[in-house]
Amino acid sequence: MGEPAGIGGELTIKTWAAHRHELSPFFTLDAPGRLRKEAQQCGLDIDIVEISSPAEANAIFADALPVIALQENADATYGKPGVATAKAVLESIERAVAYASNGQAAALVTNPIQKETLYDAGFGFPGHTEYLAELVGGGMRPVMMLAGPSLKVVPLTVHLPLRDALEQLTTDAIVEQGKLVVDALKRDFGIPHPRLAVAGLNPHAGENGKLGMDEIEIIIPAMEALRDTGAELIGPVPPDALFTPRARQRYDAALCMYHDQALIPVKALDFDHAVNVTLGLPIVRTSPDHGTALDIAGQGLAAPSSLVSALKMASAISASRAAHES
Amino acid sequence: MGEPAGIGGELTIKTWAAHRHELSPFFTLDAPGRLRKEAQQCGLDIDIVEISSPAEANAIFADALPVIALQENADATYGKPGVATAKAVLESIERAVAYASNGQAAALVTNPIQKETLYDAGFGFPGHTEYLAELVGGGMRPVMMLAGPSLKVVPLTVHLPLRDALEQLTTDAIVEQGKLVVDALKRDFGIPHPRLAVAGLNPHAGENGKLGMDEIEIIIPAMEALRDTGAELIGPVPPDALFTPRARQRYDAALCMYHDQALIPVKALDFDHAVNVTLGLPIVRTSPDHGTALDIAGQGLAAPSSLVSALKMASAISASRAAHES
Repeated sequence: MGEPAGIGGELTIKTWAAHRHELSPFFTLDAPGRLRKEAQQCGLDIDIVEISSPAEANAIFADALPVIALQENADATYGKPGVATAKAVLESIERAVAYASNGQAAALVTNPIQKETLYDAGFGFPGHTEYLAELVGGGMRPVMMLAGPSLKVVPLTVHLPLRDALEQLTTDAIVEQGKLVVDALKRDFGIPHPRLAVAGLNPHAGENGKLGMDEIEIIIPAMEALRDTGAELIGPVPPDALFTPRARQRYDAALCMYHDQALIPVKALDFDHAVNVTLGLPIVRTSPDHGTALDIAGQGLAAPSSLVSALKMASAISASRAAHES
Repeated sequence: MGEPAGIGGELTIKTWAAHRHELSPFFTLDAPGRLRKEAQQCGLDIDIVEISSPAEANAIFADALPVIALQENADATYGKPGVATAKAVLESIERAVAYASNGQAAALVTNPIQKETLYDAGFGFPGHTEYLAELVGGGMRPVMMLAGPSLKVVPLTVHLPLRDALEQLTTDAIVEQGKLVVDALKRDFGIPHPRLAVAGLNPHAGENGKLGMDEIEIIIPAMEALRDTGAELIGPVPPDALFTPRARQRYDAALCMYHDQALIPVKALDFDHAVNVTLGLPIVRTSPDHGTALDIAGQGLAAPSSLVSALKMASAISASRAAHES
């Protein structure tokens, strides 16, 4: 569901209405009544059918949008997220994780949430992804990948001030994340011999120490350790040279040293089509690469392209994992 | 000329051969003999004619590439920059600056140089641009803009380790540079009411202090001071949201907080067509947005698109300044 005061419901409805023929069957955990009202507001005359278990979704998906109804209240006012629906937001995530974990669903796709409202209701995680990691258990450290048609990027750190992100730049962190990304490229994306580009931190990747020592002291030792595990790497690549059309042909994913080094190029190149993929979890999880868009909620203006991409990618990753494990 | 062991000569020849009809007349300061050999190697049967003063260039430009011959030795071996030609590299720059300063040339366009070789020959500047500022005198602080078809960006600092760039992030520096950029957008680009976007430093532009205080303590006060001068600003914009197709419609130039925040998006979007423009100098100066490309020098592989763009932009800026001053 995501945040019911945002564009999540509209996106789900539009996605089913216009794109179901290109997608694997899905169902949503939401309030059927609210969704029907949203469909009406969008001028879409579609069937929204309540199901009681995921297994029922396949049979009806071609003709109706299947919904598993939440128990908590999910009736919201557009643009005004409130604590009244916070429990429903969490219920939707928790039950979806359970279905994905026990195999009743092949993957989990999450619509955007409004963290502030959840904090006010007692939610204690820095974000959606950390909450999912807690729900699936096992002490995994989830890693965010942004994947678009032009490139895949993984930032070493996410929601940290830039100065703190520099403090957390260590050889160990790069090695750990690099291994995880290489494994995910094999298992989730079906690339037998992944090529990983490692970004430099400084302008021109430090120009042999003249513009910073981080490449020599931190990044290159990590790359050597990763090469010892058999990984195929290029880098440290000067950050501004890493995302040119020619450079992008040379790698399958780029490991970036901080949030915006990764997100600036993918949003400049693949906006509306990039997907947030969580690596390192036992379940498959993707999400659209945008927020709750409270400012346009309920106006019929939201474009479902990123949710469509997220559903397609979830399906592809699920298939790749199955092939990899067989 | 730029570095004669690089691709500069080839670019100049190809530019004249294939693009002279779309360009204002130009001449090059170089070694006519070496250029003739380079033209032959490129399979281009063109006239390369020595002139003794810039005024002669206009009359012959349609039929021949005009060259003012350097006195110093500019015969180089491809891919191997040496101190033997360092004096010629500097002579080319110095004489070109003199022509631009005394009005014999409307603008200066510089081919890429190899700084290391010049350092070995006693060159004492961090880069090309600082050398130009010294040559034109007046204690100006030159500012680099990268301008492409998709966007114009100005980084607050250039060749500094990222950690040092964060140390140099001050309200005063943003105000000073912001004023200079707004003035340049008016005078050099003919935009009467420029809209300047100011990037945040931290992910999500700090999320009201939750992800860093730099926006609140440094950037927003600078924006207030800039607004007091009449500048039209947006920001601090979350860095990853600043370069999406929609966001780019909302401003004429983006003031970025460090080198790669500016250069990653412009090279991802406008590679081969971005131009380096030096703001804040009394002369007009542009250059292609690439290096000496020693690895492909002398092989006929270099693409002149960025030099062509640099010549066009130099001509446009020169015309805009003339109109602005009249």
